[in-house]
Amino acid sequence: MTAFAALSALLGDRFTTAAALRAAHAQSETHVTGGLPDGVAFPETTAEVAAIMAICAAHRLPVVGWGAGTSLEGHALALHGGITVDFVRMNAVLEVRPEDMLVRVQPGITREDLNRALRATGLFFPVDPGANASIGGMAATRASGTTAVRYGTMRDAVLGLEVVLADGQVIRTGTQAPKSSAGYDLTALMVGSEGTLGLITELTLRLQGQPEAVSSAVCGFADMVAAVDCVIETIQSGLPMARIEFLDPAAVAACNAYSGQSIPELPHLLIEFHGTPAGVAEQAARFGEIAAGHGAQAFRWAEKAEERTALWKMRHAAYHACLASRPGATAIVTDVCVPISALAQAVEETRADIAASPIPGPILGHVGDGNFHAILLVDRESPAEQAEAKRLAARMADRALRLGGTITGEHGIGMGKLGHMQAEHGAAWAVMGTLKAALDPLNLLNPGKLVPPHGT
Amino acid sequence: MTAFAALSALLGDRFTTAAALRAAHAQSETHVTGGLPDGVAFPETTAEVAAIMAICAAHRLPVVGWGAGTSLEGHALALHGGITVDFVRMNAVLEVRPEDMLVRVQPGITREDLNRALRATGLFFPVDPGANASIGGMAATRASGTTAVRYGTMRDAVLGLEVVLADGQVIRTGTQAPKSSAGYDLTALMVGSEGTLGLITELTLRLQGQPEAVSSAVCGFADMVAAVDCVIETIQSGLPMARIEFLDPAAVAACNAYSGQSIPELPHLLIEFHGTPAGVAEQAARFGEIAAGHGAQAFRWAEKAEERTALWKMRHAAYHACLASRPGATAIVTDVCVPISALAQAVEETRADIAASPIPGPILGHVGDGNFHAILLVDRESPAEQAEAKRLAARMADRALRLGGTITGEHGIGMGKLGHMQAEHGAAWAVMGTLKAALDPLNLLNPGKLVPPHGT
Repeated sequence: MTAFAALSALLGDRFTTAAALRAAHAQSETHVTGGLPDGVAFPETTAEVAAIMAICAAHRLPVVGWGAGTSLEGHALALHGGITVDFVRMNAVLEVRPEDMLVRVQPGITREDLNRALRATGLFFPVDPGANASIGGMAATRASGTTAVRYGTMRDAVLGLEVVLADGQVIRTGTQAPKSSAGYDLTALMVGSEGTLGLITELTLRLQGQPEAVSSAVCGFADMVAAVDCVIETIQSGLPMARIEFLDPAAVAACNAYSGQSIPELPHLLIEFHGTPAGVAEQAARFGEIAAGHGAQAFRWAEKAEERTALWKMRHAAYHACLASRPGATAIVTDVCVPISALAQAVEETRADIAASPIPGPILGHVGDGNFHAILLVDRESPAEQAEAKRLAARMADRALRLGGTITGEHGIGMGKLGHMQAEHGAAWAVMGTLKAALDPLNLLNPGKLVPPHGT
Repeated sequence: MTAFAALSALLGDRFTTAAALRAAHAQSETHVTGGLPDGVAFPETTAEVAAIMAICAAHRLPVVGWGAGTSLEGHALALHGGITVDFVRMNAVLEVRPEDMLVRVQPGITREDLNRALRATGLFFPVDPGANASIGGMAATRASGTTAVRYGTMRDAVLGLEVVLADGQVIRTGTQAPKSSAGYDLTALMVGSEGTLGLITELTLRLQGQPEAVSSAVCGFADMVAAVDCVIETIQSGLPMARIEFLDPAAVAACNAYSGQSIPELPHLLIEFHGTPAGVAEQAARFGEIAAGHGAQAFRWAEKAEERTALWKMRHAAYHACLASRPGATAIVTDVCVPISALAQAVEETRADIAASPIPGPILGHVGDGNFHAILLVDRESPAEQAEAKRLAARMADRALRLGGTITGEHGIGMGKLGHMQAEHGAAWAVMGTLKAALDPLNLLNPGKLVPPHGT
């Protein structure tokens, strides 16, 4: 039996080679394209995923996992063809354990759907990358976002996994206990492995209590150095910020135009505190004092829920606001992460680099983590602009490494950053290749991604 | 040249085969013994560690890392002989970066020495296993302790590593940025690997700000269920406890006798809050209300620093207090960790099991993590008692697995828990063996530990 016949026998019309569906899985939200799968599978159970993997292993067909298609670096594009496994039908909440503040889910559920399902429990899933990504994809990318400064990244949020390995075997990692020192941390090895070591079929996630009180604010600074110094002092003083974001003047201008705000076009911080009413009030007051010491201006507290919602809606819409600021443009979105002491320098140098190029590129990011993004707006029809944007992104990555940081804080490697892995990891990159070869000797799982090219 | 000659040429008198030093590295703090190394090396630099490893690889000699000798499960005992690498001379603080709240250290520094070195910075290293362990050993064991409920375990505290691999190659994992999604999380793979994948020669650690205000209390409950329910409600309400420990009545009695306290012999919680003066006061008041709702009695706040010191000194001395409660006894100390919803059941069943045995065994632990310890007090001269203690410990591990937990929350596998790895991990244990074989094909790094026995 051919592989396709075996997959059809297994899945019926949930396996397809239809051109439109293959094409739909050969594009992601951003500029990254390429890699047409030979077929797309829509499993409903772990057993089906294991069977798909076994069939593909027997026929030496590559297998690529697919979540919500919101990757910014083309992680899920089938560079070497094969079968794309779309988890859209595996999107159930399997178990909520409120006393243990845990939830067990299938990988295809999106973070917004998960939080809707949790609403009545008083708990929420905190990792917030902006996009309504799938939880499985967020784990595979080691995603984070606006709340990582308080609640951590997917590295912290995932307590355990069920994974289908390259030979079709199913393993479980982690337990439901809050911690363990029993052996290698396979959970952490799988989180961030971008589908190259296994297919995640189930996740046990840590939840957080919905805060009793929330307080948000926005304030401007004369320059980036003042804004970052304010953040460093806030962190060192132990104030437990739930979010602290920054927007550069270009990003502020784009948000003003898109979201109908009239914020002064200065570097801005958006901040949020979670806690008890008294705790939040104290934290807000302390932050106000620290910010004033760094010359904060145009301070505006969002006391009411509607004001807060408008503020964070503006932040989450920033990507689309930036896109709209150059009509007809597409975006090359890139992220780096540096030690916070180097953040002002990294942002200022990046801004100067972008200013010297013909491309607009607002900058924004998660300042509490030293993580920032440039949204490089390029003409869809201009290969020259696209090449220039890629050069700007490469220089950002080089700069991050020079400053002790990493080439990506939360977007992952995908297709865009593979060329910088050797520079970041040195000899450790080959070690990643050794681990990949040990767990996937036929190089079937998302080939062409993350590790050194096969055979080199 | 023989291996010993090569090691002597490299290290001079910092390589020894003296019987007394070999014997000193064949015993740990507890009952676990066995495994005499053929020689002991005292390197001073990473280059020396790499050279030791290369010599041992060439001569097929096992290599075992050694920190402060405080392991409770015999992790660092040289079961197959070879060379023990004692990191006592690699104990420097290499760099403090206060703005980034990071420190770079060598593995031999102990946590108390590290915190002494940090005192003037306003920062501290939070992971507190009780024993004055070495930082390298704590990372290798994925240790935690009383503060994990707030500040996390070594999994969270280690941002990056320098590691000597089995072939003598030196790699670096992680960066100085607070997070990264650039490739496999080799840092997490090494943390908890118990010296079986590499020798840790440098660590970059996250620090925390010293809290402005601290508040501690102790209170008793009618039974374990009430105490655990109090903790669950406290966690769910979002109160950021810095520590929450429990002692069973037998542990309270031992502490009373040893530390001159007169605490009622009930299940007790010891709790601590860190924050601003107002924040801590609010948290303490809220905890008091929650605890009262669960029938807390004999409530005592330790307002003054001396009272707090006495309280935590008592907690840290609990192991020695338990030992002293049965003069001449030695202890078999074992830990498990369960979902917090199962903690009361796990503790009660364990207490009943111990009560039905001829061995005393006070129970204490880190209730916020679902992690608890039994200190099984056995006659040094009685193989029957020791065998019975091991049976009790094995039943604890089985019970933890039945309840969705792990066979060890923080003590690690070492020699004591290897027999339970298959039961905890199933097929994933063989995956650990595959990773080990890929990175250490000659099985030289701490052989006989953590992974399935070689050749099976």
